[in-house]
Amino acid sequence: MNNKIYSLVIVGYGGMGSQHGRKLEEVSRIKVTGVYDIKEVRQAEARTKGYKVYEDYQAVLDDPSVDIILIATPNDSHHPITLQALHAGKHVICEKPAMMNSQEVKDVMSASEETGKVFMVHQNRRWDEDYLAIKKLVDEKELGDVFYVETRVHGSRGIPGDWRHDLKHGGGMLLDWGVHLLDRLLILFPEKVTSVYAKLSYILGHEVDDGVKVYLTFEGGRTALMEVGTTNFITLPLWYVTGLNGAAVIEDWDMNGKVAKWDQADTSDAVPIVAGAGLTKTMAPRAENTVSEYPVPRVECDVRDFYYNFIDTIENTAERIVTNEEVLRIMTLMEAVFESDKTGEVVHLNL
Amino acid sequence: MNNKIYSLVIVGYGGMGSQHGRKLEEVSRIKVTGVYDIKEVRQAEARTKGYKVYEDYQAVLDDPSVDIILIATPNDSHHPITLQALHAGKHVICEKPAMMNSQEVKDVMSASEETGKVFMVHQNRRWDEDYLAIKKLVDEKELGDVFYVETRVHGSRGIPGDWRHDLKHGGGMLLDWGVHLLDRLLILFPEKVTSVYAKLSYILGHEVDDGVKVYLTFEGGRTALMEVGTTNFITLPLWYVTGLNGAAVIEDWDMNGKVAKWDQADTSDAVPIVAGAGLTKTMAPRAENTVSEYPVPRVECDVRDFYYNFIDTIENTAERIVTNEEVLRIMTLMEAVFESDKTGEVVHLNL
Repeated sequence: MNNKIYSLVIVGYGGMGSQHGRKLEEVSRIKVTGVYDIKEVRQAEARTKGYKVYEDYQAVLDDPSVDIILIATPNDSHHPITLQALHAGKHVICEKPAMMNSQEVKDVMSASEETGKVFMVHQNRRWDEDYLAIKKLVDEKELGDVFYVETRVHGSRGIPGDWRHDLKHGGGMLLDWGVHLLDRLLILFPEKVTSVYAKLSYILGHEVDDGVKVYLTFEGGRTALMEVGTTNFITLPLWYVTGLNGAAVIEDWDMNGKVAKWDQADTSDAVPIVAGAGLTKTMAPRAENTVSEYPVPRVECDVRDFYYNFIDTIENTAERIVTNEEVLRIMTLMEAVFESDKTGEVVHLNL
Repeated sequence: MNNKIYSLVIVGYGGMGSQHGRKLEEVSRIKVTGVYDIKEVRQAEARTKGYKVYEDYQAVLDDPSVDIILIATPNDSHHPITLQALHAGKHVICEKPAMMNSQEVKDVMSASEETGKVFMVHQNRRWDEDYLAIKKLVDEKELGDVFYVETRVHGSRGIPGDWRHDLKHGGGMLLDWGVHLLDRLLILFPEKVTSVYAKLSYILGHEVDDGVKVYLTFEGGRTALMEVGTTNFITLPLWYVTGLNGAAVIEDWDMNGKVAKWDQADTSDAVPIVAGAGLTKTMAPRAENTVSEYPVPRVECDVRDFYYNFIDTIENTAERIVTNEEVLRIMTLMEAVFESDKTGEVVHLNL
C-alpha cells in the first residue's frame, strides 16, 4: 500500500478551482499546496486557505515539490498549460471541456505518452446520481432493451457571466454542459455514433451558443436527444428513457421521477378517452393493473472517486475511469455538432 | 338566413364515421340520412340508428337527395371516393389524412374547382382546447416572442389494430396523428418551413411507423419538435413552449400545466444549487419573486364549428377554416418527413 501524499497546485482558482479545493480537503492522499491565478482577489482567497500563491506559472512548473497540476482556467488555455505541465514532469487533472478541438486532445495524448505523466479530464458528472440511476436501469435492462434516451439540463439564467460568453475562450453551453451530457450518453449507448443533427441556439444574441439540441443515431438504430437550455423558464425532465417494457423519467436533481414497467399484456380492449375535441384509443392509458409504477432507484455515488482513481492511475493500480480516448471521442463528436449546426445538414460518422 | 337542411351520408361507418354521426346529431342544419359500409356489423349498427343503408357506393352517388358525402374510410380510398363524389355533384367532408400524397390533393382541388363542390378535410384537432390555449399564448405574446414549440402525443398501446397497420392503406402514426400536430404547428408558426429532419420509429416491427419525431426549422430561425409515440409507458407533456419572457407547458388533455412568466430582471447573483455531483449557477432556478406561475388559460371551443363552417363555405357566407391549400402544404410536409427518414438527411424546403 502506497501512502505517498501528492502535492497539487490549482491553476485558475475561480468557481471550479475553488470547488476542487474544497472537495480535495476530504481526499487524504492529495494535498492542495498552492494556487496560481492572475486575479488578485483570488490570490487573496487562496492565502486565507493557507495555500502558497505562485507569482507566475513558470514558478509552479519549476517547483519540484509539485506532483499534480489541476487546470481550471478558461478552456482555450488548457492546451498550452497542459503541455507545459506534462513536459515539466507534472501529472495533470484538467477541467472540461478538455481542449478546444480534437487535434489539441491528440497533442496532449502524445505528450502524456512521451512524458509518462497522467492527463485526466474531470468528467465529474459521471458521478451524478441521476445519471447513475439511469445507467443502472439501462445496464440491468429493467425497462427491457432501451431504444431511446433524452437527457436535458434547463435553466433560465442565460450563459454564466464571465469568459463563457467568449468564442475565443471556448465559451458557450455545448462546451460547458453539452460535454457532460454527451460524455454520459456515449457510455449509456456504447455502440458507434453514425449520425448527428444539431441546432445551437443564439436566443440571447451572444457570439456563443446559449443552448443546444443534438439528435444522435447509433449503429443498430438506437437514438438519443441531448439538450442544454439557458432560456427555459419551465424545465423539462433531466432524463426520459424508453425501453421495450417500460420507461423512466427523472425530473430534477432531487431525484423526483418514476419508473413505469409493463407487467402483462393488456388484453382488454382500449377504452377511448376524450382527448381534446376527439376521442383516442391509441393514446388511452393502459389499465392500471398492467403497468407498475415505482420510484427510480437510488444509487450511492461519491465524486471523490475521481481523485482516488487519478492516484490509482498514477500508481498503475487500477483501470482509469475517464480515458483520453473517450475525451477525444467526445471532442470529435462536438466538432460534428458544430458542423451540423453550421451547415444545417446531418453529419455522418463512424465514431 | 338560409334554413336548408343538408342531407349527409357517411361512407365508412367505423370509429370516426360513427363519431361523426353522434356529433352531427347536435348540428341542426345537417341530417345524417344514410351510411355506406362494406361490413355487415356496421350496416346493422347504422340501421339501429335509423339510417338508410346503401347497397353500394354508386347508389349513394346516384341518390339526388344526398347533398354531402362524409368519407371516413381507410386513407388510400379517400382519393377515388372523393373524385367520384365531387363529379356526382356532392360536397365532401373527408377524414384526415386527406390523401396519400400531394398529387392526390392537387387532383381533388382541381375537381372541386371544376365541379364547384366543396371539399373540406376534417382537421378536428384544431378545436382541441390544449392547442387553442397554446395558440392564445403565442398569438397574444404572453410569453414574449415564442421561438420554440414542442408538441407531442404519447401512448403505449402501439398502432391501433386495424388497417392502420398497413402501408397500402396509408397506415402508420405520422399519417394518423402526425397530420394533426403538423397542421397545428404550421398555424402557430405561419412563416415558411425551411428544413425538416425526421425519424420514423419501427419499434414494434410493423411495416408502418409506430411513431415519429420531426424537427422543423422555419424562415427566420424559429424551430419546433413534433413527436408521436405509441411505445411510451410514461408520457411527456402535450405542449412545451418557450418564449423570450416565459414558458408554458400542458401536461395532458385534462389541461394540467402552467405558465411561468418572467416579471423582472433577477439582479441577485445566482446562488449555486447542488446538481448531482457538482454545483451549478447556470441551472439554478430564478428567485421566486422574479417569475410568476399561473395556470394555462382555458379556452372555449366547440368542434361542431367545423360543420357550421362547412355549411357557411357551401353557402359562401364565411371564410373557410380548413383550406385545401393548408391541406396540400401539410401533405407536402409529410412527404418531406418520409424522405428525410428514408435518406437520413435534412430536407430543405421553401414551404
